[in-house]
Amino acid sequence: MEEVENYITTNQDRFISELIEFLKIPSVSSNDHYLEDSVKAAFFVKEQLLKAGADISEVRETAKIPIVYAEKIVDINLPTVLIYGHYDVQPAEPLHLWHNPPFEPIIKDNKIYARGACDDKGQMFMHIKSLEFLTQTNQFPCNLKFLFEGEEEIGSPSLEKYLVDHKEELKADIVLVSDTALINNDTPSLIYGLKGIIYFDIELTGAKKELHSGIHGGTVENPLHVLCNMVSKLHDENKQITIPGFYADILEPSDLEKEMMNQIPFDLEEFKSLVGVKEITGEAGYSTLERISFRPTLDVNGIWGGHNGQGAKTVIASKAFAKISMRLVNGQSIEKVISSFESYFRSLAPETIDVQMNVLASCESALTPIDSVAYKAAEKAMFHTFGKKPLPVRMGGSIPVISLFEKVLGINSVLMGFGLDSDNIHGPNEHYGIWNFFKGIETIPFFYKYFVELSLK
Amino acid sequence: MEEVENYITTNQDRFISELIEFLKIPSVSSNDHYLEDSVKAAFFVKEQLLKAGADISEVRETAKIPIVYAEKIVDINLPTVLIYGHYDVQPAEPLHLWHNPPFEPIIKDNKIYARGACDDKGQMFMHIKSLEFLTQTNQFPCNLKFLFEGEEEIGSPSLEKYLVDHKEELKADIVLVSDTALINNDTPSLIYGLKGIIYFDIELTGAKKELHSGIHGGTVENPLHVLCNMVSKLHDENKQITIPGFYADILEPSDLEKEMMNQIPFDLEEFKSLVGVKEITGEAGYSTLERISFRPTLDVNGIWGGHNGQGAKTVIASKAFAKISMRLVNGQSIEKVISSFESYFRSLAPETIDVQMNVLASCESALTPIDSVAYKAAEKAMFHTFGKKPLPVRMGGSIPVISLFEKVLGINSVLMGFGLDSDNIHGPNEHYGIWNFFKGIETIPFFYKYFVELSLK
Repeated sequence: MEEVENYITTNQDRFISELIEFLKIPSVSSNDHYLEDSVKAAFFVKEQLLKAGADISEVRETAKIPIVYAEKIVDINLPTVLIYGHYDVQPAEPLHLWHNPPFEPIIKDNKIYARGACDDKGQMFMHIKSLEFLTQTNQFPCNLKFLFEGEEEIGSPSLEKYLVDHKEELKADIVLVSDTALINNDTPSLIYGLKGIIYFDIELTGAKKELHSGIHGGTVENPLHVLCNMVSKLHDENKQITIPGFYADILEPSDLEKEMMNQIPFDLEEFKSLVGVKEITGEAGYSTLERISFRPTLDVNGIWGGHNGQGAKTVIASKAFAKISMRLVNGQSIEKVISSFESYFRSLAPETIDVQMNVLASCESALTPIDSVAYKAAEKAMFHTFGKKPLPVRMGGSIPVISLFEKVLGINSVLMGFGLDSDNIHGPNEHYGIWNFFKGIETIPFFYKYFVELSLK
Repeated sequence: MEEVENYITTNQDRFISELIEFLKIPSVSSNDHYLEDSVKAAFFVKEQLLKAGADISEVRETAKIPIVYAEKIVDINLPTVLIYGHYDVQPAEPLHLWHNPPFEPIIKDNKIYARGACDDKGQMFMHIKSLEFLTQTNQFPCNLKFLFEGEEEIGSPSLEKYLVDHKEELKADIVLVSDTALINNDTPSLIYGLKGIIYFDIELTGAKKELHSGIHGGTVENPLHVLCNMVSKLHDENKQITIPGFYADILEPSDLEKEMMNQIPFDLEEFKSLVGVKEITGEAGYSTLERISFRPTLDVNGIWGGHNGQGAKTVIASKAFAKISMRLVNGQSIEKVISSFESYFRSLAPETIDVQMNVLASCESALTPIDSVAYKAAEKAMFHTFGKKPLPVRMGGSIPVISLFEKVLGINSVLMGFGLDSDNIHGPNEHYGIWNFFKGIETIPFFYKYFVELSLK
């Protein structure tokens, strides 16, 4: 294993030029215009996996954009790691904010700039290069399966069916994903918890048609007022969410978890300047890091209704709309919260107002216990290559595929990502540090090694 | 004067064909594409006024769409009536909802269907035909001045300057406007009061950029929550407006006004079905008619911010927007309410949120006392031609030009309109009853007669 550093040094120029070739393919999943490019990217990945030593590597059709599946089975008695990643990327717009064309990668200050450089082409490509190293040095601590999809940025619409249809083939002991960030290059970290999410589309209807605020103002319910009143009742003065029973089932973090959270470097002034706010706020009795890590939240993500053009239009809207989402933590059940939010939110509306609610998306929270074999293996691998024990982090975000793996395949995940929050994923001038790219290739084989060692103990 | 009925019967076919010719010109003021048509309409009006007997009739340039000015001065010692109307129309879209092309008028069930048929081409045209009658029968009780603009539907941007520049020329004793509706053809009515209006554009800013509701949710103020909280505090549980001092200066209606209001036929079930609501609501302690006639109101006319497209976007908006307007009644001062609303609304925002407020439009409330000469003259004229005393009505709406005439020229107005609420002005299939068109032509000369009689008393 120790040869991996040497192997990277010897092959570094080729690794980068191959990644650049990959980044040149505009596999934007949200735009059908790029469908052919997505297929091209799938075949590129498939070929790379074959060259790197996979026994099997295939482009598998789905309803839309194909999945690439590959495997290297060395001994069916050994543990199996399923590597997940995605080769599709976010749209690159607005193009005028990029310093280089997003699909013509450049290297500047030891970073590769291109759409997908970090999310997730650069990070998934590390796994192919680690496979190549293991093949070239003929050392496979475990079996490897690779599942790379092309629809992650549009919510993985084909993935659940694929997992159900290929449950047997995908059997594994752990899912390994590199699609997240380190705290910084001096502070390695591992995501061990993700929040769940419930996302609602909401539509209120008052009068059957638009009314005139001069002629009808003050005589009928204005749905925009009603919506504002309803939203204003969702938090109390302590910024606690008022849905009955909302907090009842939460599994509180252990003292150890809290202690570890406190080791995460956090500078409030830096945080404020980074997000661009004058002052922080949030649920009373918790710090910002606790709010992000351990506490459920509720946000209105969008609201609209009535006149939003230039000038004055004296209208009372017939309809008011909102997008409202909640982030759930360990212990909270999606079904229960959906049902209690629905009935509570409806109860806030006057009888004259019709309320339509529709769940647009949902996924359970996910946790890989920090005393689990998989977590410990990742921790050891990072300690080995970073020289520092990574900090365990519970993220405020949600990664729906992780809960899909749990739900359909019954497999936990380890999120060992090598990006940085400053990589501008989803934004203009996305980039990925070459140091991070190589550090990932170096660390992954150690994860396999320690995962097997700890599993067989 | 009594010959007017005969004169109409003799000339009815020509009157209608001339109106149809006028309605064929698509003088849509909000769309520059129709600028030439607006000019064409102005010249049509000018020629009609000359043919009808005006001494002077001119198309006067403004910054955009011209004003037509005409006059018939018979004796400078007699009173002068200034007739105001507008020859521009609302856009006709959506076209697919029209039964006939909006600028190819048709007659069906004794109504003329076309954009502008009622608002205001049909109603202003009555005044030209009344002038023609007076000229043909050589009886002018008073001097007449005509001011027809082509920008009413876009907020009369050129009118104030025109009034200021032509203050001397426009000297008159009363402004007569036909741009409103009767209660119904069996219940004539006269608008004697209009509400004032203040219309605000509001913009809240939280973080400097859009944030991620997973990563940042629950740690910073969400401007959409803040906006909802602020709006929810603008009314109390009795639906009274909470702006400090808001109701202090209101001049309450007299007992006579209230008594007359109670004579207005009002069927609650019909009202509910007309506006399409299950139940009415409004300020506690007042009836629906009182709310419309005598009470100030506050409405959010539009609200927006964050994601309003399809699907789920987990964003915390940087900005939240609203359009908020108030209708003011007799006694309330625009300046005072603007200032108290601004400081009150700002006080509702947490310090971390930046609040921008901009007054988009405002006009004072207007009242033509029902014991004034002008009101009594209109009342007598309508009594003469309808056989019924018209009911005095205070409208919930605002007509900014009326307060402009008061402010710049110092002249009150009489709103003697002959439309119906069912005429679909501003909507598809706008129409105007031929009976109403002729009834207007018949009534207007009697207004002149009685106005002079009562003035000289």
